Amino acid sequence: MITMPMGKLHIVPLGGLGEFGMNCMAVRWGDDIVVIDAGLMFPESELLGVDIVVPDISYLLENRQHVRGIVLTHGHEDHIGALPYILTELNVPVYATEFTLAYVEDKLDEHQLLDSAVLNEIRPGQRFRVGPFTIHPIQVTHSLVDCVALAIHTPLGVIIHSGDFKVDPTPTDNRLFDLHTFAEYGKEGVLALLQDSTNIERPGYTPSERAVGRKFDEVFARCQQRLFISCFSSSIHRIKLAIDMAYQHRRKVALVGRSMNDSAEIAQDLGYIEIPDGTLIHPGEIKNFSPERVLVLISGTQGEPMSGLSRAAVDNHKHAKIEPGDTVVLSSRIIPGNEKAIYRMIDHLYRRGAYVIYDDGSHPPVHVSGHAAREELKLLINLVRPRYFIPIHGEYRQLKRHAELAGSMHGAVGSVMMIESGDVLEFDELGARKQTRVAVGRICIDSGSRGDVVEDLIIKDRRHLSEDGFVLPIIAINKLTGRVESVPEIVMRGFAAASAENGLMTEARQIIIATLEESTEEEKRDWGVIKEKIRQDLKRFIVKNTSRRPLIMPVILEI
Amino acid sequence: MITMPMGKLHIVPLGGLGEFGMNCMAVRWGDDIVVIDAGLMFPESELLGVDIVVPDISYLLENRQHVRGIVLTHGHEDHIGALPYILTELNVPVYATEFTLAYVEDKLDEHQLLDSAVLNEIRPGQRFRVGPFTIHPIQVTHSLVDCVALAIHTPLGVIIHSGDFKVDPTPTDNRLFDLHTFAEYGKEGVLALLQDSTNIERPGYTPSERAVGRKFDEVFARCQQRLFISCFSSSIHRIKLAIDMAYQHRRKVALVGRSMNDSAEIAQDLGYIEIPDGTLIHPGEIKNFSPERVLVLISGTQGEPMSGLSRAAVDNHKHAKIEPGDTVVLSSRIIPGNEKAIYRMIDHLYRRGAYVIYDDGSHPPVHVSGHAAREELKLLINLVRPRYFIPIHGEYRQLKRHAELAGSMHGAVGSVMMIESGDVLEFDELGARKQTRVAVGRICIDSGSRGDVVEDLIIKDRRHLSEDGFVLPIIAINKLTGRVESVPEIVMRGFAAASAENGLMTEARQIIIATLEESTEEEKRDWGVIKEKIRQDLKRFIVKNTSRRPLIMPVILEI
Repeated sequence: MITMPMGKLHIVPLGGLGEFGMNCMAVRWGDDIVVIDAGLMFPESELLGVDIVVPDISYLLENRQHVRGIVLTHGHEDHIGALPYILTELNVPVYATEFTLAYVEDKLDEHQLLDSAVLNEIRPGQRFRVGPFTIHPIQVTHSLVDCVALAIHTPLGVIIHSGDFKVDPTPTDNRLFDLHTFAEYGKEGVLALLQDSTNIERPGYTPSERAVGRKFDEVFARCQQRLFISCFSSSIHRIKLAIDMAYQHRRKVALVGRSMNDSAEIAQDLGYIEIPDGTLIHPGEIKNFSPERVLVLISGTQGEPMSGLSRAAVDNHKHAKIEPGDTVVLSSRIIPGNEKAIYRMIDHLYRRGAYVIYDDGSHPPVHVSGHAAREELKLLINLVRPRYFIPIHGEYRQLKRHAELAGSMHGAVGSVMMIESGDVLEFDELGARKQTRVAVGRICIDSGSRGDVVEDLIIKDRRHLSEDGFVLPIIAINKLTGRVESVPEIVMRGFAAASAENGLMTEARQIIIATLEESTEEEKRDWGVIKEKIRQDLKRFIVKNTSRRPLIMPVILEI
Repeated sequence: MITMPMGKLHIVPLGGLGEFGMNCMAVRWGDDIVVIDAGLMFPESELLGVDIVVPDISYLLENRQHVRGIVLTHGHEDHIGALPYILTELNVPVYATEFTLAYVEDKLDEHQLLDSAVLNEIRPGQRFRVGPFTIHPIQVTHSLVDCVALAIHTPLGVIIHSGDFKVDPTPTDNRLFDLHTFAEYGKEGVLALLQDSTNIERPGYTPSERAVGRKFDEVFARCQQRLFISCFSSSIHRIKLAIDMAYQHRRKVALVGRSMNDSAEIAQDLGYIEIPDGTLIHPGEIKNFSPERVLVLISGTQGEPMSGLSRAAVDNHKHAKIEPGDTVVLSSRIIPGNEKAIYRMIDHLYRRGAYVIYDDGSHPPVHVSGHAAREELKLLINLVRPRYFIPIHGEYRQLKRHAELAGSMHGAVGSVMMIESGDVLEFDELGARKQTRVAVGRICIDSGSRGDVVEDLIIKDRRHLSEDGFVLPIIAINKLTGRVESVPEIVMRGFAAASAENGLMTEARQIIIATLEESTEEEKRDWGVIKEKIRQDLKRFIVKNTSRRPLIMPVILEI
């Protein structure tokens, strides 16, 4: 008989359980903590003027001498986006695969944290130690490349954290989902499986990344003019499919959008994408080639007001010009909350005379999910056969439905534990139970506009809003005429109080008026664009004149 | 040979073409105008503090002596919701079917316009005259009952306006889609078909309203406790199915929510719903029956903060109490833009321990659309065989795709004309062409909170915002603790300038604090609820103290 070690194992989700995004979890044995993922969340529309949201890491800061490192499962923003913020507060070693590290390096470089960071490359199948934990990265498939699940060996047994995954039998990089390792752990015995709940509501099996290839085939065959494809810049599989097909169909490829360029460069450096010589052209060269010889890979699938595609849609992009008869492909899903912005952009594209192809449920699909649907979730549960099952990554209803699914799988799952961000799940030799809670929450960050170096350097906690206050420019636009009615109102609080009533206010109003004047009619009809432009221009002005960084939240009143 | 009459026929959409909702169209021959539908639009989230949006009817007002009447196709808000506003400006006769008129009467009564309105009941198959037009209402099926398409006989030929429709072969009221009349018009020749574009993106055929019955069957058979079903209050088919099934399964029925009660009463009066004696109970009686004997029909499918279901979800409803093990059915779709509110409500319901059934794509469906999918759209086009086809009811991309569909139907369609709100489509003996545009736009209305009689009486055009100004209460809530940080800020403009800085402001702050204090923790975490409560309380206070009706737009800052 084996003597069980005396001690407590704690699993402490700091974000992502009961909310979408901001994935971050502490695993603790005695005085040693390892953190899995450090993600951000994109703010809800209620949070006007906030760019990103990161988890409150008070728990880690209170235990700062015990935190041994942060292990990342993959490179999506909801898993790595809070790193600059966390490392600023707590500079511990980071462990991630080669591709994930490349994203991390870019991000830390932007925040001038790269020199001080301790980055360790890990590889699927190669175990490494962090404090008392031996961690075994297991190769999984997802919409991004080089993603891993983690088997964390603890004194009480093995915990498997799925990361984000789907079981794709034909990934474009041919790096397969490592079923065998999960199977082996299942045979040996697993204490707990923590599994991604994102697609628990979808029946069946998520199609392979290659399924999109059939749609692209069709599009390339039919398109007689310029072809624009937009996808998330991290959709390396998608970018690879598009570039391979462009080469076959003798089209040059222009990359438009900073994130698209960065991401493609990383993928090329690391061998995920091969671009034959002479294929890539600079966006400025688009006009030199006949339209049927050009593919433009462009960022902005979510209708983000300042993105390449949004600007092209209102004919406000220097190089990406959309002509009647061109084809625009949105190879992405509609993130809930973005419908209006996206459909508005699609309307603009149609008005330009473009053929627009987007995910409308038709087959073959122009987009596939990166997350496991119900049959895949069941497959992994059957392989791993955990004593405890804990749903992670999802809003409450998703965790709940995932818990119900696992609860119905007799023979494959011992018990199901539902926990949320802030709950402490304690394991000892007798079993598992929910313990007291720790402080968790959301920290709002205004990360500054891209391209503005000064602002990019600093990532700023807005918790003490009173320090820098806020500015609400209120613009009354006559919907009928598109004209701005009367001088813009500006409401300022907790900021530059003395001068606010005087020159600053007047100048700020002038800036808003100037921004409006230099906008096209199409932009003016699109409040998302107008708001973002005003925000950026005002911000530049305020930072320059006051060195303060208030929240700026334009409000448009239609009258 | 027939001599064609000399003259011009104009089709002038004033709303609903190139935007979602706010359907309204003028048809003009010489000096006579008939208006089809008078709908509202629910505002985009950018329009903080606005309740509804109605079309600008300047065109009708400029031609007020020529407007002969308004004909309504059915009783949904996006077809009748602007009536009170339009009749206030232009009191012309209204024509509608019996059921539609019942909704209209309720609405006009609320706005004290019923006595002065001239309402004419029309019936499917019975032609009537409005000015020079003979109008033939044709029975169609839809998610609502007593809906019609209109065949409008003009000196240049027949125009068919589809209204909203699906081709439901088994509607719950057995009133069938009148294929035969469309077929006859198609044989005789139709000048133009104006057809609903809402579901142009959906392939195939929309399932019958009865398809939901199979899901309800399943739910009633399994539910061992209290059963809550929520649907749009106008979903008469759905309410009928639920009540019939409740009777079969020996459950009493309680109706919760004013709109649900009103709607069920109308449907009962007009014979669309039969409620056996002793079946209906008052919500106050719910607690007197054992849980497995009760069905609660409750309004609030869209997570509207003050609706019955939203309040029940946070345990803040007097009669509708949700216990662990109860079942809650959302028999509705998620209107884009409402996802977060709806999923937040679903999370609350799960936290209460309820089984929640919502439209997650599984079969049998818990909700079906009321609009024709592509095969149905093609069917009607084939039956009608119009010389001109004009897509209506849709955003630009939907109109465009509908135009493409019709354009590909050789032999069934002469020409396709794409027009948008404000375009004038002119017909004469030679053909059709786009003419100059007329002024169109959106008018924002703050209709007042329900239940507050004084506010309900007046429907107020907010075009002259400067008259009443606006109030922005700004509340900083600490997400971690849920505590309100510091005294709420209130920004007022264009309103009560003299007293604003003094007592009024202080009192308004106290009201916000009081509202926050009497809210539950769950409500506080739900910004939608908190904002709406603050808005209503502040509004009551401001109206009482100043007799002004400023726009009130609570802003919550999470810090």
